[in-house]
This record gives sequence, structure tokens and C-alpha cells, in this order.
Amino acid sequence: MSPYIVILSTGSELTAGRSVDTNSGWIANQLFELGWKVKKFITLPDDPKLILSELQSLQSLAKETPVLAIMTGGLGPTEDDYTLETVLKLTGKTSYSVEKAKLRLTKIYESRGKEYKDILPSVFRQTFVPEGCKTLDNSVGIAVGFIETIGEKSHLVCMPGVPSEMTEMFKRRLVPELKKLYPRENLHQKTKWLWNIGESLFQNDFIEPNRDEFFQEAEWGVTANRGYIKCIFQSTNETLLSTIIQRLEDTYPKIISDDVFQFVHEQLLKEKLTISVAESCTGGLLGKKLTEQPGSSSYFIGGFLTYSNEMKSNLLGIPMETINTYGAVSEEVARAMVDGLCRKTGTDFGISITGIAGPEGGSPEKPVGTVCIGIREPNGNISVHRYLFPGNRESIRENASNTALFLVYQSFKN
Amino acid sequence: MSPYIVILSTGSELTAGRSVDTNSGWIANQLFELGWKVKKFITLPDDPKLILSELQSLQSLAKETPVLAIMTGGLGPTEDDYTLETVLKLTGKTSYSVEKAKLRLTKIYESRGKEYKDILPSVFRQTFVPEGCKTLDNSVGIAVGFIETIGEKSHLVCMPGVPSEMTEMFKRRLVPELKKLYPRENLHQKTKWLWNIGESLFQNDFIEPNRDEFFQEAEWGVTANRGYIKCIFQSTNETLLSTIIQRLEDTYPKIISDDVFQFVHEQLLKEKLTISVAESCTGGLLGKKLTEQPGSSSYFIGGFLTYSNEMKSNLLGIPMETINTYGAVSEEVARAMVDGLCRKTGTDFGISITGIAGPEGGSPEKPVGTVCIGIREPNGNISVHRYLFPGNRESIRENASNTALFLVYQSFKN
Repeated sequence: MSPYIVILSTGSELTAGRSVDTNSGWIANQLFELGWKVKKFITLPDDPKLILSELQSLQSLAKETPVLAIMTGGLGPTEDDYTLETVLKLTGKTSYSVEKAKLRLTKIYESRGKEYKDILPSVFRQTFVPEGCKTLDNSVGIAVGFIETIGEKSHLVCMPGVPSEMTEMFKRRLVPELKKLYPRENLHQKTKWLWNIGESLFQNDFIEPNRDEFFQEAEWGVTANRGYIKCIFQSTNETLLSTIIQRLEDTYPKIISDDVFQFVHEQLLKEKLTISVAESCTGGLLGKKLTEQPGSSSYFIGGFLTYSNEMKSNLLGIPMETINTYGAVSEEVARAMVDGLCRKTGTDFGISITGIAGPEGGSPEKPVGTVCIGIREPNGNISVHRYLFPGNRESIRENASNTALFLVYQSFKN
Repeated sequence: MSPYIVILSTGSELTAGRSVDTNSGWIANQLFELGWKVKKFITLPDDPKLILSELQSLQSLAKETPVLAIMTGGLGPTEDDYTLETVLKLTGKTSYSVEKAKLRLTKIYESRGKEYKDILPSVFRQTFVPEGCKTLDNSVGIAVGFIETIGEKSHLVCMPGVPSEMTEMFKRRLVPELKKLYPRENLHQKTKWLWNIGESLFQNDFIEPNRDEFFQEAEWGVTANRGYIKCIFQSTNETLLSTIIQRLEDTYPKIISDDVFQFVHEQLLKEKLTISVAESCTGGLLGKKLTEQPGSSSYFIGGFLTYSNEMKSNLLGIPMETINTYGAVSEEVARAMVDGLCRKTGTDFGISITGIAGPEGGSPEKPVGTVCIGIREPNGNISVHRYLFPGNRESIRENASNTALFLVYQSFKN
């Protein structure tokens, strides 16, 4: 049986709206992939009374049903970090300092110089956890996480609020513990990406017609992103899952993919191919995406940000006449950009992007959202693709960069 | 007296982590600027039982203290929109259709053609509100918002979940009502940024020593970001606020700034100056940041992504000897990069970034996080700054790009 799951985040910066809580959604998403649904998110300011009262409610609820409460934040070194103190009040326990964490903290602070060394005693509290609880090591930051029991089959998990620390702790330390605490039937999951299609259209064209056949015994979920939707299917019946994916591939042969970012990264490494970019409207976003993964220096050698027409002409050797005749946002210029790029860099793949990110600069023939992407493949072929992306400036730039990577994916697949 | 404020958002896409709730934070931020603090955010799936039970808790709480609950979502036309139904159950009232909204909806749907006209009856429910409540017109979409009384000085506000509809309704319709329902004194606010300083150090060095003098009559809050912390101060006493800012400037003369992104954008436009970039470890992130604002094409002309040493040498004319002698991540190479850059582009400002974003590639002399940033100012001066940024790959790249913009800010200020 699944526990009643609540995700609790604390931080006055959240309830003041100065910062957006991305932790709760991320955790819910991870739990969904494990087959669990969340009943409630709660966000509280750094106020020990409010936090304690909420934890007491959860403790009461745990008398009726198994509860899993996952809490983030409030484990830091400052006076407004109340999580440990509140949990101790709740359980009546004492706390102790985790020796390993204390040594690690000392080493880190000493390496930062004297002013940090001086405040060391005031930050040791981050290494304390309630006695007798299960600890969760922090391999990114300092604060130690822990799992406390709050009733029969009921647990309170406390993790730091810093996303990079929390996500690492969740995946490496917490998930194995959760699987022990709440064992369940093995759930299979498959994920596919569909490009440049809306969520409602997908639901209408794929989910509805297949509802009776597939979705009595399987769950589905969609995450909409810039340029693609991620479709997640889950079932304990693995054969059914394969049938669903086959139907999906038959329905959308041209726009379906796996995780493009991961695939392109791995394939470039594996085939020892190189890539370079020439970006106009995205201003560097594609290059940034191509260098997100460690090891990207094996394939990404660099590129040109040609935001102005002069830069397109000077750096990539595009005749001003071409730009003036067809416009900077045109198939012709995208082709010339990627051609000039690969002549300069000599890479196997080349990508060029030129478009109108808006909000100004649109025209009836080329409205805001018009983007031309050129791709040069390792065999020397150049093709150019024109799109009209929806949304605002940020959305159009994200769409364009993601779609460019999809074109590299397709080139590998064909 | 301020009410106990709760923000409630509903939507199964939120609790499954497929979509991030930006409404609650936005509302909290607006309320914070009006001088109100939010006690709690709650997010629930589209489950009428869970929603009703939460509203009943709020109704009970309202017997003890004035409550203001602001709820978004669940007012749409589909079967999983439960807000109105749940509120009617809570109060035992009936509902009626707001005539003005009904006429508006009919006009909009009729203009969209036959298939929309046919489904018109099924969407009328969006025009219904509880009898006797205060209605909130929707000038962007269709669903009508409302304010229901749930106890003495206690109110439940229901608004649509679509951000563009909600924000417009909040600002135009709700704020005037709130000011009538909960009158209070005028609050002033000032924000400053501090660079490359941790939150705990700031609290130790500034808040603690000034607590008695300043923070009995003023509120403070800190948002930590990559490279900077944003410090917000609020008070009804405007003179006190100016004194606090003056003390802050005296304490941190070298690392204080206003909103760097906005300032750099406006100043480049105003002084008609141009800028270009040469990025290594950030892979395009700085260019992306410089082109986030519409109108950036007036000053950002482009740049070079020189990820590999060959690109640094070929595109920017840096002798391979310099790279081999000092290493690609060095003050010498950062200087040669920005010098080569501005020779090629002829811009007023030039920025170069070269660093070790990790997780591999660090050494005892140059650990992961070492970043050298070169800046060429309009007067031709070149300076190079070396940093050791904390965190993971993403964090180091964000830090480096933000700090580069801070250097431009400082150049303008000096």
C-alpha cells in the first residue's frame, strides 16, 4: 500500500515569493517515476511554531494511515534554520554531531580562509541529526539529511533545500531507503519525447482512442517543455508497455525520440565526432546546452555568436548581398552560416540558428517565432529547416536550441 | 492587524511535478510588497475531497483568527475543475451565472465558429459564482473570480489558475478589495545586491551588529543566487530605510550593486556602447544572458565560443605558446582572449571567460571552480580577475557569467 505522501518545503524566501520552490515538483516527479502519487505540497516560512504545528498534524495523521513526509530546507547554518530544532521538539529526542560530516565541514571552511575559519563553530549545527535516526550523507554540500520515524510505517525525511544537494541526496541516499521502507510491485516505465506537438492534441489523438485498450492497466503522464513533450508510461505489465510504445512510434514516426540531450552527448563521444555552432537569435544558448555535460570538450570545439549582420558577414564570410536580398532570418542565410561555420572550424557537425525571438521585429511574412536552423552533417550534406515557434522571447529561444539538438539526433538515427 | 494568509493552488499537474506552480510565489511577492506576509502555501491535486477538507480546516481556523485564503485553479470548464462545487459545499449556498460574463463568453465563442458555438452550454459553468459573493471580473479569459466570506474578517478568494488571467485579476480587481478589507500603513522597500559573499557571512557581519538599531522597525530578507545575494529591506519608516542602505554601502563598498542585469542593459543602450564576448567554460551562457532582453541587438554584436585551445588560437590569435606556458585557464590567456576579441569585433566592451567548470580538470594550483575573467573597457584598459567559485558545474558557469556582468557594472560606476 502506498503511504499518504506530503512534500513540505520551508523557507521565508519561498513564502515571500522571492524564490520559486522547484524542489517539491522535482521530488513529486521522481516519486511518480517510482509509482507514487503525492497528496499535498506545503510551503512554510522559517517559523518554528508553524513548522512544529504542521509536523504535529502529520504525526496525528500517521495514527490513521501510513504517512511519508518529505521536507526540504531549514538545515542550514543560520538562525532562521529551524528544521532540526523542530523535529527534536516533535519527538522529544536529543541530537548528536555526525563525525564524518564535521571533519568534512572543517576541511572545507579551513580551505576558504581565515574569515570562514572564524565562523566555523557557528556552522557546526549543520552536522547534527536526531539520535537513532537514519542519516543521509550530503556529498555536495554540508548539511546532513535524515529519516525520522513519526508513527507506524510513517516517516519524516529531512533534506537540505539547496537543489544540487537535495537532488543528489534524494537519488543516491533516499531512494534506496524508500524502496526498503515501502516495498512495492515492480513498476516498469518508458519515456518518449514528441517534438513540436501540443499536450491537448496528443491527448486527443493518442490517449483518447487508446484509453480502453491501454490505460486500464497503465498510467500515463505528460510534461510539456520548450519544443517537445515528454510522455511517460507506467505499468506492472511490461508487454503492455512495449505495445504502447510501438503504437506511439507508429502514430508519430517523424517526431518521436528518446532523450535527445543524453543521446547526442553519448553518440558524439562514441563516434568521436565534433560539433560547432553559429548562433544568432539564441545568443549562445545552444552552445551552453552543448556544454552542460562534463566531457563535452571532447566534441564541442566552439563557435560564433553572430548577432549583428556585420558579424555574420565578417566572421562567417556571408556576402552582405545575401543578407540584404533574403533577410538575416532566411533559409539562405542559415545555409550560408552553417557552411561558413564548418569551413572555419572543420567540425563534423555544424549548426546555425537565425530567427526572430521578438517581441519586436516580426512581419506578416516572418512573424515573431520564425526560426531557420541549418545543419551540416558529417557526410557534408547541409539542410535547412524553417519553424514558427510559439510563446515569448525566452520560449522561442529555448524551442530553437532544443529543436537544433533534435536535428542532430535525427541525423544520427537516419 | 494582518490576517493569517494562506495561498492555495490546485492542479494534479502540479502535485505530479509535471508543471511548476509560479502563481503562489507571484501572489506572495505582490502581498509582500503590500506589507503582508504569507503563512503557508498549499498545493493539492484536483481531488474534491482533499480540497473540501482543506477549506474546512481554514474555516475552522477562521473562528480563532482572521484568515485570508487565496486560491487559484479549478475554475475552468473541464470535468476536473472542482473549485466552485467545493466552495458551495463548504458554505451551503447556491450559485448563479454572472450575466455580463455569460454575454461575453457567448460573443467570444460565437466569433470562433460553429464547433465552438456547439460546445457553448458545456462551458457556461465558468460564469457561475456563489450567491451573495463579491465577483472579480476576468478581462483576459472567461472564468469569473470571486471573494467568499468564511468567517469574521475572513475571506476565501478564488481566481483562475492561468497566470495571465490571474495576475491581471489580482492587480486590477483584487488589490483594491484587499485594501478595503484589510486597511494598513504604507510600506517602503529597497533592494541591493552583494557579490561573492555567502548568506551566513552577511548575517554575521551586517544583520547581527545592526539588529537592535535597525531591525526592530524594519524587516530584512535575503535571496541567494549564483554569484550574488539579493538583500531586501522593508519599513514604514522611509528615513530608517535610507540609513540602512547607507550603512550597507559603507560596509560593502566594493561588492554592492543595484540590479546588475537591468543596469547594464539600460546603460549600454543609453551610452550607445557595444559589447562582445569570448567564452570558454561558459560555452555561450554569457552571450545568452546578454541577449535575454529585447533590444539587446543595439549593443550585443556577438562573439566567439572558444572551447578548444585550437579555437582560442585560430579565432582570437592567441599564440599556442602562451596557452602552453600558462595554461588555458590563466590570467595571461584571459587577457589575450579579450584583447584578440576586441581587435576582431571593435566593440567598446569586451569580456573573456576561461575556467575549470569541472567536475574533472582541476589541480592543486587550479582547483575546479577557478575562473579568469578579462574585461576590456571603452577607454581601452584591460583588466583580468581571477576567482574561485563554489558549487557544481552549473553553479560555476552561472557564477562566472553573472560575475562578468558585475564587472561591466563596476566599470560603468567607476
